[in-house]
Amino acid sequence: MEEKRTNSGPELLVSLERGSGRPLRAQLEDALRAAVQQARLRPSDHLPSTRALAADLGCARSVVVDAFAQLVAEGYLVARAGAGTVVAPRAGAGLRPAPSRPAEPTYRYDFRPGVPDLRLFPRVAWRRATAEALDSAPAATLGYIDPAGARPLRQALAGYLARVRGVAASADEVMVVAGIAHGLGLLYRALRVAGVAEMAIEEPGGAEQRMLVRRSGLEPVPVDVDGEGLRVDDLERTGVRAVLVTPAHQFPLGAVLSPRRRAALVDWARRRDGLIVEDDYDAEYRYDRRPVGAVQGLAPDRVCYLGTASKTLAPGLRLGWLVPPPVWAGRIVEVRRRTDLGTSVVDQLALARLIDSGNLDRHLRRTRPVYRDRRDALVRALNAHLPEATVSGVAAGLHAVVRLAAGTDEQRVLRSAAQRSIRVAGLSPAYLRGSSAGCGLVLGYAGVNESAMPEAISMLAEAVHET
Amino acid sequence: MEEKRTNSGPELLVSLERGSGRPLRAQLEDALRAAVQQARLRPSDHLPSTRALAADLGCARSVVVDAFAQLVAEGYLVARAGAGTVVAPRAGAGLRPAPSRPAEPTYRYDFRPGVPDLRLFPRVAWRRATAEALDSAPAATLGYIDPAGARPLRQALAGYLARVRGVAASADEVMVVAGIAHGLGLLYRALRVAGVAEMAIEEPGGAEQRMLVRRSGLEPVPVDVDGEGLRVDDLERTGVRAVLVTPAHQFPLGAVLSPRRRAALVDWARRRDGLIVEDDYDAEYRYDRRPVGAVQGLAPDRVCYLGTASKTLAPGLRLGWLVPPPVWAGRIVEVRRRTDLGTSVVDQLALARLIDSGNLDRHLRRTRPVYRDRRDALVRALNAHLPEATVSGVAAGLHAVVRLAAGTDEQRVLRSAAQRSIRVAGLSPAYLRGSSAGCGLVLGYAGVNESAMPEAISMLAEAVHET
Repeated sequence: MEEKRTNSGPELLVSLERGSGRPLRAQLEDALRAAVQQARLRPSDHLPSTRALAADLGCARSVVVDAFAQLVAEGYLVARAGAGTVVAPRAGAGLRPAPSRPAEPTYRYDFRPGVPDLRLFPRVAWRRATAEALDSAPAATLGYIDPAGARPLRQALAGYLARVRGVAASADEVMVVAGIAHGLGLLYRALRVAGVAEMAIEEPGGAEQRMLVRRSGLEPVPVDVDGEGLRVDDLERTGVRAVLVTPAHQFPLGAVLSPRRRAALVDWARRRDGLIVEDDYDAEYRYDRRPVGAVQGLAPDRVCYLGTASKTLAPGLRLGWLVPPPVWAGRIVEVRRRTDLGTSVVDQLALARLIDSGNLDRHLRRTRPVYRDRRDALVRALNAHLPEATVSGVAAGLHAVVRLAAGTDEQRVLRSAAQRSIRVAGLSPAYLRGSSAGCGLVLGYAGVNESAMPEAISMLAEAVHET
Repeated sequence: MEEKRTNSGPELLVSLERGSGRPLRAQLEDALRAAVQQARLRPSDHLPSTRALAADLGCARSVVVDAFAQLVAEGYLVARAGAGTVVAPRAGAGLRPAPSRPAEPTYRYDFRPGVPDLRLFPRVAWRRATAEALDSAPAATLGYIDPAGARPLRQALAGYLARVRGVAASADEVMVVAGIAHGLGLLYRALRVAGVAEMAIEEPGGAEQRMLVRRSGLEPVPVDVDGEGLRVDDLERTGVRAVLVTPAHQFPLGAVLSPRRRAALVDWARRRDGLIVEDDYDAEYRYDRRPVGAVQGLAPDRVCYLGTASKTLAPGLRLGWLVPPPVWAGRIVEVRRRTDLGTSVVDQLALARLIDSGNLDRHLRRTRPVYRDRRDALVRALNAHLPEATVSGVAAGLHAVVRLAAGTDEQRVLRSAAQRSIRVAGLSPAYLRGSSAGCGLVLGYAGVNESAMPEAISMLAEAVHET
């Protein structure tokens, strides 16, 4: 590296690095452009003559001439006949310092719900699936594709969802999206375009799902949940004609929608021309018995089904799927054309391979006992260290809801846990109307090893008892 | 495979495949679920007793008991005390035949603009980049990430865009999106939220870009383009305060925004508190000289810059980037939180590797002469076979605009070309107000080999002369 301060005209610190591989001309352009952008050279400042600058820098004059010509073409410099080259009058103002962004804190024990153990992501299988997809995909599949998804994945998903979730759909009816939130966002916009103004949601339910309803311009209308899941009689009373439900594993309380409620929900949809939005976010994980199939299979014309790879594989893949009733499919594609032109085709083809090769099933068989053991360890540790706490819901998914003794202050528990480097979520944000059920915690146990569970929960118990 | 027609109760064609690896119980569930979904079993139909069905199928009774219990839980069947098991009253109606979708026609010579030669996609380098990304990424990067993008890619892009396009942005200011259309869709929604109602666009311009403006609820206002690019004096007269421009290579005519127009555009934005939306879709491809740098570098506070991997790599990756002025960044992220939670992190990390390793530069160095040769061959062939045609624009990008003799009927040329299995696009859809410039064609030459060009253009000339 050789730094030169030019002798002629304004002082100009230009660093040219010989042997860097980047041409001197490009380096000079970069340096001058940056000087203008950072206001070291100001509008109307005179530049040295090309001859003088070339002599200063020890480079050929043509290098400087070329660089000046380029920056004139880009609008940074202006060549004035007989007056040399000056900085353009309007150039460079408006640069600002980069905002600094606080880093996410890290926790010793992270019970954040909704995230699988990312250490279990099948990197080798995914890498192989990607390589196979890249090796075998016809060139045309890398072009602009059907925004509804790549055919091999839609076919693989139709088979997988029929087999694993009892979903009734052909490949044409499966739409690939970038996760459930993306799919819901598309659906909500389609609903709004169709004049729908309200969306019934479970109470309690996911706070983020509720925010998404609001941000999409729909009014969330809470409907109570009990041990059998959504109270369809309550839904009926609201008069709302679209409802978001989590039948396989109610979020957050963990109930499974009972057979009679399923029948009542489908009946409601048929009588009221209603739409059931089925969020099947973590249904692959059930530990005590086989997962209960999707409501969609009972009434494909009434249910918009949504699933995701975020819990079974990793949220970072941004892969999910949507199976809308036929009457909504075209409207959702229309919304999508306004927002994005589809999802990464390489990832789509990789997931298709992962499913078709049986590697997704193998991954699920491998991870299910890991999470079951963590859940069991969690329940044991709670019994030992927080015997007053009750755990609700079936043995499924990646989180458990724990209710604490009446009078416990949820916010204080969260703060006290955070001081011990434990991240837990409170139950109260799950309620729109506010809860009368007292203090609760939502514990995502996927990210805490079985062996670490006793210590993590004993520390959490300390945090609870301190308050 | 062994097919059994049951003897008791309704006729029930159930296929159980022993040795298929799928448990008999699961196969029986699938078969019964499908029978209900496809209305072969109708609401209130009686099922055989578990004992009879087990005998018919030659399986243990527990298999049938389990399968029935599962389907009761899912809502397909109802167990009636003393009356056996019946199909649930509401189950199964509403299944519909899969819609059949017409396949895209394929052409012998495809001059569709906007798509690179997908056969040139660097599969080996991309596979290696993906593998390296998967091997080295910390587990946490596979979780829910910043919707604005993965840090390694934002860093790589900030460096790449500064070096190759003269863009002034820190990593924090670069936002990863799923292509330019996605980025524009986010921006337009943010503009609408802020009360903006109109968007100035180039006339002629991209028909799809114009549709996206309309679909986003903004009114497109055409501004004329000449040999120096956008006519800023025309823009001024419209009173509109946001404009979409393609300064590096005007789409479709191919002009480069001149130095004085750049200065005038930035001046306009500063005086009128205006926003310049810079669509830098194919700027990496310039064949006669170095590409002219982005306008964004001149006025980072006034320009929302957009770029994409769709032309340099492949549209199927769905990767693009957005560098908004600081005042718009937060609003765009807010819109994004309503629509999706980000872009595939594996692809993002792979692109970061491709850039950091120098493989993207190598790919560009390798493909630039290929496209330049195709463009040269196109121009030669046009001179030979369609001497009355004029080619407009600089030697850049992946398409050329050809104007035909006055009085030629554009629609008839397109139809006549299609009959010869040649896909070309007409110029007239590029005009909002309608063109007085007569018949034109937009020829995307990226997908036609140099050696095939003479024949392709001679066939196109036949199509033109026939009309």
